[in-house]
Amino acid sequence: MSDWVVARMLDPRSSSWPAQAFRTGQIPAVGLGVTGLVIGTVPTISARYDTALTGVMLLLAALFLVEFLLRLRLAGSVAVPPAEDDGQSVTPRPAAARAFRPLRWALSPYGLIDLVAALPVPIALLAGASSGNARLLAALWVLKLARHTPAIGLFGRVVRNKRRALVGVMVGFVMALVLAATLAYLAERGEQPETFGSIPGALWWAIATLTTTGYGDQVPVTVPGRMLAGVVMICGIATFALWAGILATGFAHELRRQTFLETWDLVARVPLFSSLGPRIIADMTGLLRRLELGADQAVIRKGRPGDCMYFVVEGEVEVRVQPRPVVLGPGGFFGEMALITGEARKANVLTVKPTTLLVLDVADFRAMAASRPDVMAIIGREAERRGASQTSAS
Amino acid sequence: MSDWVVARMLDPRSSSWPAQAFRTGQIPAVGLGVTGLVIGTVPTISARYDTALTGVMLLLAALFLVEFLLRLRLAGSVAVPPAEDDGQSVTPRPAAARAFRPLRWALSPYGLIDLVAALPVPIALLAGASSGNARLLAALWVLKLARHTPAIGLFGRVVRNKRRALVGVMVGFVMALVLAATLAYLAERGEQPETFGSIPGALWWAIATLTTTGYGDQVPVTVPGRMLAGVVMICGIATFALWAGILATGFAHELRRQTFLETWDLVARVPLFSSLGPRIIADMTGLLRRLELGADQAVIRKGRPGDCMYFVVEGEVEVRVQPRPVVLGPGGFFGEMALITGEARKANVLTVKPTTLLVLDVADFRAMAASRPDVMAIIGREAERRGASQTSAS
Amino acid sequence: MSDWVVARMLDPRSSSWPAQAFRTGQIPAVGLGVTGLVIGTVPTISARYDTALTGVMLLLAALFLVEFLLRLRLAGSVAVPPAEDDGQSVTPRPAAARAFRPLRWALSPYGLIDLVAALPVPIALLAGASSGNARLLAALWVLKLARHTPAIGLFGRVVRNKRRALVGVMVGFVMALVLAATLAYLAERGEQPETFGSIPGALWWAIATLTTTGYGDQVPVTVPGRMLAGVVMICGIATFALWAGILATGFAHELRRQTFLETWDLVARVPLFSSLGPRIIADMTGLLRRLELGADQAVIRKGRPGDCMYFVVEGEVEVRVQPRPVVLGPGGFFGEMALITGEARKANVLTVKPTTLLVLDVADFRAMAASRPDVMAIIGREAERRGASQTSAS
Amino acid sequence: MSDWVVARMLDPRSSSWPAQAFRTGQIPAVGLGVTGLVIGTVPTISARYDTALTGVMLLLAALFLVEFLLRLRLAGSVAVPPAEDDGQSVTPRPAAARAFRPLRWALSPYGLIDLVAALPVPIALLAGASSGNARLLAALWVLKLARHTPAIGLFGRVVRNKRRALVGVMVGFVMALVLAATLAYLAERGEQPETFGSIPGALWWAIATLTTTGYGDQVPVTVPGRMLAGVVMICGIATFALWAGILATGFAHELRRQTFLETWDLVARVPLFSSLGPRIIADMTGLLRRLELGADQAVIRKGRPGDCMYFVVEGEVEVRVQPRPVVLGPGGFFGEMALITGEARKANVLTVKPTTLLVLDVADFRAMAASRPDVMAIIGREAERRGASQTSAS
Repeated sequence: MSDWVVARMLDPRSSSWPAQAFRTGQIPAVGLGVTGLVIGTVPTISARYDTALTGVMLLLAALFLVEFLLRLRLAGSVAVPPAEDDGQSVTPRPAAARAFRPLRWALSPYGLIDLVAALPVPIALLAGASSGNARLLAALWVLKLARHTPAIGLFGRVVRNKRRALVGVMVGFVMALVLAATLAYLAERGEQPETFGSIPGALWWAIATLTTTGYGDQVPVTVPGRMLAGVVMICGIATFALWAGILATGFAHELRRQTFLETWDLVARVPLFSSLGPRIIADMTGLLRRLELGADQAVIRKGRPGDCMYFVVEGEVEVRVQPRPVVLGPGGFFGEMALITGEARKANVLTVKPTTLLVLDVADFRAMAASRPDVMAIIGREAERRGASQTSAS
Repeated sequence: MSDWVVARMLDPRSSSWPAQAFRTGQIPAVGLGVTGLVIGTVPTISARYDTALTGVMLLLAALFLVEFLLRLRLAGSVAVPPAEDDGQSVTPRPAAARAFRPLRWALSPYGLIDLVAALPVPIALLAGASSGNARLLAALWVLKLARHTPAIGLFGRVVRNKRRALVGVMVGFVMALVLAATLAYLAERGEQPETFGSIPGALWWAIATLTTTGYGDQVPVTVPGRMLAGVVMICGIATFALWAGILATGFAHELRRQTFLETWDLVARVPLFSSLGPRIIADMTGLLRRLELGADQAVIRKGRPGDCMYFVVEGEVEVRVQPRPVVLGPGGFFGEMALITGEARKANVLTVKPTTLLVLDVADFRAMAASRPDVMAIIGREAERRGASQTSAS
Repeated sequence: MSDWVVARMLDPRSSSWPAQAFRTGQIPAVGLGVTGLVIGTVPTISARYDTALTGVMLLLAALFLVEFLLRLRLAGSVAVPPAEDDGQSVTPRPAAARAFRPLRWALSPYGLIDLVAALPVPIALLAGASSGNARLLAALWVLKLARHTPAIGLFGRVVRNKRRALVGVMVGFVMALVLAATLAYLAERGEQPETFGSIPGALWWAIATLTTTGYGDQVPVTVPGRMLAGVVMICGIATFALWAGILATGFAHELRRQTFLETWDLVARVPLFSSLGPRIIADMTGLLRRLELGADQAVIRKGRPGDCMYFVVEGEVEVRVQPRPVVLGPGGFFGEMALITGEARKANVLTVKPTTLLVLDVADFRAMAASRPDVMAIIGREAERRGASQTSAS
Repeated sequence: MSDWVVARMLDPRSSSWPAQAFRTGQIPAVGLGVTGLVIGTVPTISARYDTALTGVMLLLAALFLVEFLLRLRLAGSVAVPPAEDDGQSVTPRPAAARAFRPLRWALSPYGLIDLVAALPVPIALLAGASSGNARLLAALWVLKLARHTPAIGLFGRVVRNKRRALVGVMVGFVMALVLAATLAYLAERGEQPETFGSIPGALWWAIATLTTTGYGDQVPVTVPGRMLAGVVMICGIATFALWAGILATGFAHELRRQTFLETWDLVARVPLFSSLGPRIIADMTGLLRRLELGADQAVIRKGRPGDCMYFVVEGEVEVRVQPRPVVLGPGGFFGEMALITGEARKANVLTVKPTTLLVLDVADFRAMAASRPDVMAIIGREAERRGASQTSAS
């Protein structure tokens, strides 16, 4: 297997079929492993299928080992960078990055995840652990899902950016926890010595209450204890609320940032916008949304109401108008007629090959029409130039 | 019953009386069905009223079948499109959409909902199910409520747009769940073999804890188990917070978008704004709020403080001033005096027929006065031209 | 007692001492009533102090009756409007509102609250209810707190504005509830017939789970039941999140609106701003914050770092500079030096009489300095004109 | 120990090594005290290590006493202000603040915290309390953590600013609580006299339900009781949602304000910005993020993709280019090449001494490039002037 094929297969951004097959296969593999882990602890099942389960787990571990070795080799090869990113890299890696760095990759977060997916289960078995205990180490395989979830990388950025505020809330949480446990211990130790008879016990109550989980295995019974509990619950809601506010605004900000970066490059490749200077690119980047389609997929269906227009970035679409279809390549746009006239779509539009489109919603279309008459004029002229309403798909 | 009547009756946007009666009747029908379903499972009731309950359920199923058939016929007729939309269609359906498409409608989400409302209960009875079990299928009738709740369509759009982030949080949730269950199993299996003795059991604890539900039927008792539980609760709050942030911002965005689209068309029909170009329409669309009133309803009451002004889009209002009332039709506006002078309303204003108004809040009126002196000047002149303070209602 | 005194006393916006005494006294009165209500249900207390408790309650009811009658008379008098508002009235009521309207007031929300505070307890006693049961009606007294909480009025506006979205989430909630209860009934009725043996029982479980309350009195034990419970919990989090998003954004919007309206009038009364036209008033209204102080209170303390400047709207402040203090009346401003030079406050500033100030935070001061150099120039000149750094307090 | 050394050591903003050692040492000291407090209540441990634990606690109390005395002396000395701030002071304290004020400091929040950390434990022992009870007072030590958490100060500002809204929600909460408890008492007192037999008991249920904690020790069993409980739970979610909205938006606002103030001073010190006037400073302050690095830390690694550029405010960085490194001091900037060309970083950049940088993210870089071509032109020229791509690090 040449390095190039391996690189293509493992590249998380590639849309070649080996890459897609590999990605598609990994999630069921992890799912199978986790299922094996979970049902393998049920006594009746483990008693009967112990060997089979362990066999499946070892097979999966072997597959993950192969994957690890392939990635390790790839990290050391010249062809392609290891393609491990957390959503921050927006530029192609340069050919200059040719240094030998398999070890560095192996010690990176993703490298370590692949390593702990591959090794612990077989090692534990070799070290003499029971098959039941060795299988438990497969719980680490869920970490491999992180690679398929760009949102995990986003989450890491949010935590880093909002570090100060999160630590502040956490410190307040700990302060509330210690004070609540001490006071609950004082209030309840007389009545319930077996559960509130020590602060560790009271802490268990305090955390279940402060998070509003409320197991109910420890409940204050004295009047001061219950008044304290009421205050603790309200503090819990406040903690919750602060946390929600911090994480939610941080997440929204990062999501917007990442979408901006992804969309920017696409917008800059549409001649209509790039010819009008950086200002319009920045404005449109906030309005447009990326849409990736495979070949032969319907973009617009005739007769449906039109609620957006499209710009072609990559690929090709076919507008099924009479007398013969019109093909639009990169830089073309369609679907604007329905937004201007308010009528239904006039033709079907299908992709010819895998196509990247930018979508402009009707609400944003109208806002843009108001603030950028120049862009609207160009869109209007282009639509006319393409030969009356024939070629404009809707 | 002509197609036209059927179409009018079933059109969710029509305000004709058959449509309103139909809509008003459907919710009690579903409510009656659900009540029958619920109380029909109480042994003492089902023993006594079994036949009556089943009869009511069959009757309702028959009604829903009739509705399904009417809608099916309508979908295939020429008169009117099937009028199933999820809040995205902002433009009238064209006369061109005359193709025969009852089957396509029957397979659409709303078609399927109407079908599963009509058929399963009678089919189950025919297939020999007990009347008690057949009635349980009436639970599917609640899906019919979705048609009356535009917010459900909005929710679908939010989930689609925020797909990536939601899946990301979900994957993190599953990772936390599997790791927490495995660790809890390790920590607690010695102490509580009957509840934490297998990972499926521990998973049940983990999900109740991670969502901060905390049933309390399974509670860790060891020190490591409890420390783990504390961490899981805090992760649960974080999950919650992220989910809240993603859904809330997405929902707010969609709501704003839909309001913008609905309001835009109305604003563009007010001559005062449409004469001033698209910019002012876009600006005002963000400020104005639609208000639909029936005939003979009070808009403004004399002597009340004024906190908004009104623009008439459709219908007619009567300003009860001396010596005789003034009638304002589409394009007219009233209520601006109270905002300018700060005095109370000077006259009652009532609708003459069903009327669509646009409302401008005093806060936005002032902001607009600052940023658009030209609009203010027109409003001021118009108010004067209508003959001193006589005709301006407040 | 003349109408004027009554009006002053009951006006919730008045700062005269009878009004303040009345307002200050009402909250303890309600508190006392609620305390009586609560402890009066403890058997040992009610057995012993039954007569005393009932006496106190009757006394309070009598007081509330007097208040009701005063307000009723006031509503019918000419002097002053009944002064019941929900935060919407931003303009003084006109003298024109002199109609006779005690009945209309009595049927308004606040009138009804005052009525149900005054009558039910004595009526119940007269009707022969036991004293214990009659006292329970005092729970209605908490409704009187609504008058002292402008946020309640805000909340009403939010619910009205977000009606559609809230109803949408509610319908989704009911749909989830019915489906969850039916499925849980199916899954668990075999195992736990006494709790999940009917859908009403399963509904009780469903609501406690969907709100993540999780009492734990009913817990699914079968595998499908537990998987369903997991899904229900996650739906519960989503409901929660949507609700939070809708209410929170709506509340934030209303709060901003009300603050804008309250601040606008004050800003328009500062000559510095009103002389510069409506634009600057609108801009500044978003930045300034109202501060009400009594007489002889410290606004600025010498030697403290300066983080805001002040504009006097009403009242008077004294800047304690050498050789003799400077008094600033309406239209004056102070505290700008510390923001410009970055040094500490140079003098104490105290109020001479009750004073309304507008506060400009340092962050907004800087933003304004960047966007409105003309305002900054005026502030700078004024500061100089007032005689070097002598009179500018900091 | 001279005052100067003491001042440096205790200054929470100093980065000198005594200050850092002191800060680093305080948190473990508090942690040790809390651990002693917690485990000291476990009977088996306190029986065995009672004296040792009390000794450690006294030692820590002595340390805190020394700290208190040092801070007290410092507050009275001339050298440096007591450096207690809650994130509001953005300007250096003036030399004028030389008054004698140890007492004032001792009565400030932080002074009181330091006092209650130092005194209660020894005083309780002297007063004859058991060693176990005296140790409980160490719970107050967690308050010392507040000094190390600027977010606590922020939280105080949020509560102050949002006072009105928070009180409003709180009043609504109390109203719901009292009404829910009274109704639950009515519904359930017949069935469950031992738990719902008095309103205090029902209140305990109401608060656990309204906060969705749901202990499950008291659960309604009647149909009206359960319907009430459902409504209470939904109100609980609404309370939660409002609280979350108010606190979260308030916190976000304060955080933005504090970041703005901190960043402003730094931005104004970069000649590139300060030469372009206050407008650009205000604009850039919203985009830039502060980054503090120690000596010899890597800022940029060669070959990594570039996602931001840097401005040096204080300190020095070394750009490791061939033939010899280039050193950039205050006012310099680097890392812009990767953003312009989209290529990977071309050189390593390390700090030479402790350095304060301002970071401009690629998304904001692009937005700025669109809206401020003048700044972009300067950055472009500077980059060229520094000798082709040699000296620009990436």
